[in-house]
Amino acid sequence: MKTTFLSSKDIESIVLEVGIDTLLDQLISTLRNGFSNTDFSKIQTPTRTGLYYTQPDLGLLEWMPAAAHGKASLKIVGYHPSNPAKRALPTILSTLCAFDTNTGHMQGILDGTFATAFRTGAMSAIASAILTPSEQTITLGIIGSGAQAVTQAHALSRVLTIGKILIHDKDPQAAASFKDRISFLSIPVSSLGKDAFNQSLPTLDLLCTCTSEAPGAGSLFADFNSKGSLHINAVGSDFPGKFELPLPLLKRAFVCPDFMKQAFLEGECQQLEESTVDTDLATLLNETKSFQANKRNTLSVFDSTGHSYADFLTADFFLNHARRLNLGRDIELESIPTDPLNPYSFLSAQNLTDRFMPKATFQ
Amino acid sequence: MKTTFLSSKDIESIVLEVGIDTLLDQLISTLRNGFSNTDFSKIQTPTRTGLYYTQPDLGLLEWMPAAAHGKASLKIVGYHPSNPAKRALPTILSTLCAFDTNTGHMQGILDGTFATAFRTGAMSAIASAILTPSEQTITLGIIGSGAQAVTQAHALSRVLTIGKILIHDKDPQAAASFKDRISFLSIPVSSLGKDAFNQSLPTLDLLCTCTSEAPGAGSLFADFNSKGSLHINAVGSDFPGKFELPLPLLKRAFVCPDFMKQAFLEGECQQLEESTVDTDLATLLNETKSFQANKRNTLSVFDSTGHSYADFLTADFFLNHARRLNLGRDIELESIPTDPLNPYSFLSAQNLTDRFMPKATFQ
Repeated sequence: MKTTFLSSKDIESIVLEVGIDTLLDQLISTLRNGFSNTDFSKIQTPTRTGLYYTQPDLGLLEWMPAAAHGKASLKIVGYHPSNPAKRALPTILSTLCAFDTNTGHMQGILDGTFATAFRTGAMSAIASAILTPSEQTITLGIIGSGAQAVTQAHALSRVLTIGKILIHDKDPQAAASFKDRISFLSIPVSSLGKDAFNQSLPTLDLLCTCTSEAPGAGSLFADFNSKGSLHINAVGSDFPGKFELPLPLLKRAFVCPDFMKQAFLEGECQQLEESTVDTDLATLLNETKSFQANKRNTLSVFDSTGHSYADFLTADFFLNHARRLNLGRDIELESIPTDPLNPYSFLSAQNLTDRFMPKATFQ
Repeated sequence: MKTTFLSSKDIESIVLEVGIDTLLDQLISTLRNGFSNTDFSKIQTPTRTGLYYTQPDLGLLEWMPAAAHGKASLKIVGYHPSNPAKRALPTILSTLCAFDTNTGHMQGILDGTFATAFRTGAMSAIASAILTPSEQTITLGIIGSGAQAVTQAHALSRVLTIGKILIHDKDPQAAASFKDRISFLSIPVSSLGKDAFNQSLPTLDLLCTCTSEAPGAGSLFADFNSKGSLHINAVGSDFPGKFELPLPLLKRAFVCPDFMKQAFLEGECQQLEESTVDTDLATLLNETKSFQANKRNTLSVFDSTGHSYADFLTADFFLNHARRLNLGRDIELESIPTDPLNPYSFLSAQNLTDRFMPKATFQ
């Protein structure tokens, strides 16, 4: 029984074959349909758990499981914010595993690093398309211009018309390089210092926070009065004690988490009482009009901690593309004995009687 | 950055190259050293969590994490007891992943199915060698003669002299085929019906329970008076509500779980008060003599729910052998962009400007 492996090159081939915009549009559509058409009481999406350590640097290794429709997925995701500066590696390294729940067989394993950035952008786009329903050209602000900022800007540009982007990153290198990294979007970018960015906050239509601030560091900025309508995608908050937005702002905003249970453990919602949080994304998708009408003070927050069902759908999405394009390789990973009751059935009688003559010693 | 994949064939090659007995002896020694030399307050071994479902059949998909010494492992293990009869597949299908906790990189992935059966046998052997310290030829009883029974009998035969084996399995096919499956051990096997087996219980020196009974089914047999010294390896209990041994027996036995925390959630220890459980395997290994002297009524139980640190050591064990024997293949699984802040850095300017011309549509 084979397990399909998609290497990072296979993911690249899918991107090249389909085209980066089309692929992102497809994923946005797949996730939007998946979230709006699923009865979440009938599927299983436990909140993530993981290992947390502080040596040699702060790090997390987490697993995000989901089971639905006879299949399951597990995203294994490492979060090591010292990676870019110290090791020229992305903060997030991840793999996605897909299973058949009839048997427990691992059907596929693929890179989850690109998929995580891609689907996180797509989820923000889905929420923003509802909560920033502007026909006009809008101004997007981004705090934290690392890897996630690229896919956030890209995905948002697929559903809204962005006239300019203001960014702030406390790391000057990350701030300086962002313009080049998203030059393909042909949207003017201004990189601002902290004070200048904070002063422009009231002029924004859309804000993305996607920082790697340490837990306990507090909010990224003080509360402010937004002049018009403002929607915020809060993407960076993903750990107990870590959040990016000031409490007074959250309290007067219409708050929509991607994943209600998890948002109270790790998201901006950690700061809120359960009764004050308005709805989750799946409900918003099904009752868009009533929520748009009720959007509190025209200020809204999408509290994006990362949903395991988005990973479930994304794994399926890439595996389907790979199947169609004949990519990946099939490996007999799990040991399936010819006799299911005999783990040694691959050994001949000869192999088993040879057993008193070890051929090698362990070093 | 490469991830090493060991296929089931690679695991077979390791077994063939090293020899099945030598390999098992090495693993017993590796696990014994690992458990006795580790300060468990300095490593992380959370209890397992997972997905549980009842459709189409009862099934479980669980993950067992461990982090120690700059490395981490995650065993993903499916438990689907209808697999052998309905699908000619093993009840347990599993994969083992190894990580570097400096970066979160997945260093290796390998079959965990063979490894699970092999290490579970090895762990019983380690406990039994201490708690059945007999120089004499002993009688081993096994209830549940499926896949786990093969490695239990094999591993126990490496540390004790077994004169005969009595087995019982409610599935006549599993019972009938066991003799052939362990013929390589050259130990006489008698398969008994339930009543006959229960009547022989008092004659046993060593008993292994490794059934797939459903949670809530109760103990496999009623309490009995063992004539001499008896040690029991309770291997099958691995789920809330599932256990194999009668409470009165447990109450008067010296009880040693592999993994204290987990045994109270899923093991025989579910039936016991925490204060009545004697010690765990790691402590037993370090204080063998004092525990042997105190062994209550010469009746002891090793409550084996499966320890994630055993999986951690086992993953390392097979990966080390593979490295030495030049087995496995290295695949660039995780997408590592040349610029860690740019998930799209594998795309050329051309690829990015081509983006408005999708090449394919999604089916």
